[in-house]
Amino acid sequence: MKKIARVDMSTLDVSTGQVPEDYAMYGGRGLIARILLNEVEPTCDPLGRKNKVVISPGLLGGTSAPNANRISIGGKSPLTHGIKESNAGGTIGARLSRLGIKAVIIEGKPEPYSLHILKIGADGCEVLPAYEYKGVGIYQSASMLQREYGTRAGIALIGPAGEAGILSACIAVTDPEGNPSRYCGRGGIGAVLGSKGIKAVVVEDTKRSRIAYSDRESFRSTVMTIMSHISETPDAGGFYPKYGTPFMINLMNDKGALPTRNFTSGRFEKADEISGERMYEIIEDRKGEGKHTHSCMPGCVVGCSNVYPDADGHVLVSPLEYETIGMLGSNCGIGDLDDIARLNYLCNDYGVDTIETGGAVGIAMDCGLADFGDAKEAENMIHEIGKASVHGRLLGSGVAIFGRVLGAKRVAAVKGQGFSAYDPRAARTCGVLFSTSPMGADHTGGHGMRSTMDQLRPEGHVEYSRKLQIITSAFDCLGLCLMIASAVGGRPDLISRLINFRYGGNREDDFVENTGKETLSMERRFNRGAGFTKADDRLPDFFKEERVPPHNLLFDVSDEEIDTLFEFG
Amino acid sequence: MKKIARVDMSTLDVSTGQVPEDYAMYGGRGLIARILLNEVEPTCDPLGRKNKVVISPGLLGGTSAPNANRISIGGKSPLTHGIKESNAGGTIGARLSRLGIKAVIIEGKPEPYSLHILKIGADGCEVLPAYEYKGVGIYQSASMLQREYGTRAGIALIGPAGEAGILSACIAVTDPEGNPSRYCGRGGIGAVLGSKGIKAVVVEDTKRSRIAYSDRESFRSTVMTIMSHISETPDAGGFYPKYGTPFMINLMNDKGALPTRNFTSGRFEKADEISGERMYEIIEDRKGEGKHTHSCMPGCVVGCSNVYPDADGHVLVSPLEYETIGMLGSNCGIGDLDDIARLNYLCNDYGVDTIETGGAVGIAMDCGLADFGDAKEAENMIHEIGKASVHGRLLGSGVAIFGRVLGAKRVAAVKGQGFSAYDPRAARTCGVLFSTSPMGADHTGGHGMRSTMDQLRPEGHVEYSRKLQIITSAFDCLGLCLMIASAVGGRPDLISRLINFRYGGNREDDFVENTGKETLSMERRFNRGAGFTKADDRLPDFFKEERVPPHNLLFDVSDEEIDTLFEFG
Repeated sequence: MKKIARVDMSTLDVSTGQVPEDYAMYGGRGLIARILLNEVEPTCDPLGRKNKVVISPGLLGGTSAPNANRISIGGKSPLTHGIKESNAGGTIGARLSRLGIKAVIIEGKPEPYSLHILKIGADGCEVLPAYEYKGVGIYQSASMLQREYGTRAGIALIGPAGEAGILSACIAVTDPEGNPSRYCGRGGIGAVLGSKGIKAVVVEDTKRSRIAYSDRESFRSTVMTIMSHISETPDAGGFYPKYGTPFMINLMNDKGALPTRNFTSGRFEKADEISGERMYEIIEDRKGEGKHTHSCMPGCVVGCSNVYPDADGHVLVSPLEYETIGMLGSNCGIGDLDDIARLNYLCNDYGVDTIETGGAVGIAMDCGLADFGDAKEAENMIHEIGKASVHGRLLGSGVAIFGRVLGAKRVAAVKGQGFSAYDPRAARTCGVLFSTSPMGADHTGGHGMRSTMDQLRPEGHVEYSRKLQIITSAFDCLGLCLMIASAVGGRPDLISRLINFRYGGNREDDFVENTGKETLSMERRFNRGAGFTKADDRLPDFFKEERVPPHNLLFDVSDEEIDTLFEFG
Repeated sequence: MKKIARVDMSTLDVSTGQVPEDYAMYGGRGLIARILLNEVEPTCDPLGRKNKVVISPGLLGGTSAPNANRISIGGKSPLTHGIKESNAGGTIGARLSRLGIKAVIIEGKPEPYSLHILKIGADGCEVLPAYEYKGVGIYQSASMLQREYGTRAGIALIGPAGEAGILSACIAVTDPEGNPSRYCGRGGIGAVLGSKGIKAVVVEDTKRSRIAYSDRESFRSTVMTIMSHISETPDAGGFYPKYGTPFMINLMNDKGALPTRNFTSGRFEKADEISGERMYEIIEDRKGEGKHTHSCMPGCVVGCSNVYPDADGHVLVSPLEYETIGMLGSNCGIGDLDDIARLNYLCNDYGVDTIETGGAVGIAMDCGLADFGDAKEAENMIHEIGKASVHGRLLGSGVAIFGRVLGAKRVAAVKGQGFSAYDPRAARTCGVLFSTSPMGADHTGGHGMRSTMDQLRPEGHVEYSRKLQIITSAFDCLGLCLMIASAVGGRPDLISRLINFRYGGNREDDFVENTGKETLSMERRFNRGAGFTKADDRLPDFFKEERVPPHNLLFDVSDEEIDTLFEFG
């Protein structure tokens, strides 16, 4: 029997109850949208009493399907003031699924300065005081929590930034080794959890409950088919495990779409030095604790994550991903992976989004507050976020606010969310996504940059982005990792069969498409209630007015075409 | 023949041309709305190339009508991202009207760091370099400009804040004595003028042109009727000249609606010390340059302005108005008029809105960055704005952004515009205005607090605010001062007759009402294009959740009723 766990932080009441019928066939991102639409005033203060944090594994969570244990965490975003779902790997998704918990809903607001741990186990939920965790960084907090709750617990936790309500604060999630290496990074969802006075959600590992299947054998054989598809694709079965997402550095640099020095160029002269290929060499050279492949969650058969070691072979950070390298690296003119890894570690430990931070540091440099390439100064700025000083709070408020306050010429943000590492002038599919995604300028909605679409011409990106956004949001409802999208994205029949064999029923092949469309529609409905209109589906003017080298392009997909994106049917 | 002066700051081209037919019967606030709707993309960057600054006297500007020479300055606001019209007294309205100039439109964007003066005279317009004015405060700049262009010139100018693009920067306007004592304070319109590289607009005094009247004699006799009405009203003809707007301190304190310590109380224990009555005593006691009455523009018959002297009788600041005393005084827990006058002077000299600054300083104090009542620390904060340091830029970004970055619990702003000195929980008519005005939480749209409306009950405020907003926006189109509203607001026939005798035609008594409605409708149309929805017509949650002493009220006018406000008919 599936359950919903509900925690009221105003009263510290906890309850675990039946799943309302209205929520039964939603999961992950879709369930977050459904719950927010039903239960949260779209105009509410994102850090106030009326907002809620929803933590939900996908519909395939806990099953033997590969790469299906991602966890979605969402609420109204303090950055965008719209809906936010941010998902990550780690073990908490599988742990919740195994406990039969469809969603954890955290609501209300405690007394100021209180701090708690929400512990979820087979015997129910408990809210425990956590004063000793106040101001403690993510890494140390994770260790302390594991000492207390065991290394098998799945943990989602915030750092000092989330406690302080810094608007770009993220939530870390522990991986199978217990390291807080996975991040629900975007949208400031860590500040929302912090506003509820929750330092960590700890989910015990339990073997007691088994996942029930409507048809276990058919499920298993479908899984085998999917596995063979994955092993046959060149990315998931080939270069993802070798180079991980950083293989995108050279790809994007070639396309002229790698953000460089606050979006003043799409090509970085030190791209080779920060590329996936270079990272692979470094990891192989340094040996020690480094790993060029790493599975971030139970059931991952791809292993695109990594562990990046220092010169002595000790872990510097894990993982080092494309987005972080692009935004804290080339976008800040920083061309050394060790430097970037150190900045990444700091952001992780304080619990702020590396993408939003890289964007803001790039703006600071563009405005003359530091030199491009000055990693030491970037480090100082990030320390200010950790201290929650006024400067740090401002930097941690993200690209949109920071750029506005500084009067910056180039502020790469949509709907209050800073750009991920894609210059839309030479990555137009991604530009269309950034314009229209209910999440703002967030690549996780389906950036499309690994396709063969011609990014130098304006045609076709709206249609392509529509398809991508639909399948991506469906994946986010199922708990599936996008790294297997090339293997199964073209076989929606396999996915609908998995759902049928898990839950029963006879869904048709259009289940995936319908799930994606419904999710996007619900999210847009919430955003309309929060005051969003098509005026919010626009890139900043400078992308349409300032040409970016090397191709000297503007973003030129028309507003009219962009406004057709959500005309489904 | 009326003209439109147009200046393109990208090319430094100036032109003076015929008034397009579409603009002919608009003036002031209405003409700004018309021009923005026709010429400015609502989604544009407020500090970018596509925004425009429009300076326009009212339809009765330059005539012998009393209190009719206010100047409206507008554009897309960098604070609200919606339309902004801010009006003030001073001489520039009369000067432009006498030159037959209906509007000055400043467009385009110059090279960074360029600074110019726009000089307008009988022989046309000139754009002149003004490097020597870079970073010079408002007071010294005004003196320098008068040495160069004569004391009779009407001047609108910005300070260092406007040059630096600080979001709450204002525009100062010189009064009949040549002092920069009048302020288009709200909405950050000074940052827009700064983004155009304009330090000052200087309008020469000319006696050459006379205002043409369709029926001069009838106009004059209507003016006489209006004058007698004014002299018979207790406010315009009585306590306004004696106490000015600061008489509102005791009135609002009595109502429990005087913002105190960042809106945590509606009553201030030192209200007496900062009241209009106290100010009158001080001015009378100290003698010297102080004046309890002062006319801020040609044709003003009320004289509600003042000159506030220090203990030696030298000018400390002129004027000291209710809004400033409320926001920099009680709202910051500061109970000394000399202290407030000094803070006011600093804001004026740097060229930032005293209201937005008082709101932000109050939040800083509420968040523990300084103690309530610490005038010295408030002064230090304002100096940071003058330096355009990162701290200063943040503080100068206004209440909404500052409060969000600090994670403040109480952020009194609507549509990005900080509250004027009225607590909506005990000033509900004003709360309805703040909710709905296209300008955000700006009292100048018609605050209604001098009426006998029962502010302790929720009923009737929407209907009353609708009436007030309509007449107020009509006044802003005509160039009329609201200080005569009680005298002629109930006689729209007198106003329509003035317009007929000035321009010809046979407008009916509903002219005033229609003008107001059309203006509000145009403004709302622009705002809708900029992305505003009814979700933006809402007060912050804390006004609905935290009771304010002494009456322990919440703001409880319903959203449903508020949404009917603009249902004209």
